[in-house]
Amino acid sequence: MRQSAENALLTPEQLKKRLLAVGEDRYHHKHPFHLLMHKGELTRGQLQAWALNRYYYQSRIPVKDSIILSRSDDPAFRRAWRKRILDHDGTDGEPGGIEKWIKLAEATGLSAERVSSAHEVLPGVRYAVDAYLNLVSQRSLLEAVASSLTELFSRNLIALRISALREHYPWLAPGLTYFTARLTQAPDDAAFALDWVTKRAKTREQQELVINALQAKCDMLWAQLDAIYFSYVEPGWPPPGAFQPDVQ
Amino acid sequence: MRQSAENALLTPEQLKKRLLAVGEDRYHHKHPFHLLMHKGELTRGQLQAWALNRYYYQSRIPVKDSIILSRSDDPAFRRAWRKRILDHDGTDGEPGGIEKWIKLAEATGLSAERVSSAHEVLPGVRYAVDAYLNLVSQRSLLEAVASSLTELFSRNLIALRISALREHYPWLAPGLTYFTARLTQAPDDAAFALDWVTKRAKTREQQELVINALQAKCDMLWAQLDAIYFSYVEPGWPPPGAFQPDVQ
Repeated sequence: MRQSAENALLTPEQLKKRLLAVGEDRYHHKHPFHLLMHKGELTRGQLQAWALNRYYYQSRIPVKDSIILSRSDDPAFRRAWRKRILDHDGTDGEPGGIEKWIKLAEATGLSAERVSSAHEVLPGVRYAVDAYLNLVSQRSLLEAVASSLTELFSRNLIALRISALREHYPWLAPGLTYFTARLTQAPDDAAFALDWVTKRAKTREQQELVINALQAKCDMLWAQLDAIYFSYVEPGWPPPGAFQPDVQ
Repeated sequence: MRQSAENALLTPEQLKKRLLAVGEDRYHHKHPFHLLMHKGELTRGQLQAWALNRYYYQSRIPVKDSIILSRSDDPAFRRAWRKRILDHDGTDGEPGGIEKWIKLAEATGLSAERVSSAHEVLPGVRYAVDAYLNLVSQRSLLEAVASSLTELFSRNLIALRISALREHYPWLAPGLTYFTARLTQAPDDAAFALDWVTKRAKTREQQELVINALQAKCDMLWAQLDAIYFSYVEPGWPPPGAFQPDVQ
């Protein structure tokens, strides 16, 4: 009896509940680096290190979404998914997420060239981001799409972040358009992806793969902040060759 | 004049000097986690975390070497390189490096099952090791072989480590056969790889690729220790789901 309950297909509501629980446990809203950020306890140099390193993640997002596009045989899916590439790479006259992220980095005092070269990105950040590209390339399309479900949690984090950044680091204000755009983009994307995986995970085993893929993605976001915290918050030290802030 | 000197082919001695300089700057013999280890300042729980996490790297070594084998068309190269797989996986009656590493982990008080499951490995360690597999899969065979040249530096580190571990953590003594075997294996392997890349890097550009591949490998070793230090040395914390030592 218990055996069969353990293997029973989850209802859409049960699946959503499990996914939300993964976010509660593992999403990076609880990471100590974010907690310091939101309390206003980071220096400008630490925000530079965050913006410069996180740029590498931003720059890989359209690559990740192009891999996902390339793996689908369904024109309707591709028509829906390609919106993400437009959002990040921009359209005629409309800057995309990558360009907006560079504005954020510039607001911390870094040059666009220095950030977009990605030369000083921490190896640990690079490996975590590249692991995300490996996941969407090597696991099933179902898992690749499920890994995007961190967007279920990003709206709350971004809303909190916008108000905390405005309050504690007012000089960052000209750089916040990336986040204001994501307030509407992310929930739309998450709703589509949640509906898609819910319909396509037809066995309990597939549902567990969906949950594991979301957990794997949370780990990748968390590991980026671990690397940044370790290198730039006392008593850490950046590895040889990585970015060294020249301001406090 | 200077332009041509910058692009001139390095002599074998100059190339070796550049490679040794990479090791001096970037090899993990200088990592703070190793410095604590060699001064006897790690707890048994911290040595457990190191042995458990570093097991994931050990377990991927024969996979890495199999990828390199699969990329060579030269039977003579493959005959020389396959020794590494035997060294790590063992032969009839002779335990290989992976089995010896498990003995080391057992000497810290962990069970072989817990270590070999790799369930509690830090995501940051996993991503760094997987980045090494990506490097040997995706870059040229010349760079894949060059990335193994960290073995030029390992003998000195291992000799120091054996004596420091015996002195400060005498209960580890039954687990040290991994290191005693590497004292002779690593220099043989390094001499072959150095000779091979020196002969095959026929342009300055290829020589620079060799140097960069060694640097990339050093970064991967360093990043593993960053992740371990951050999680297990005060005031760090392991990410959700990772190994938690139950001893000091």
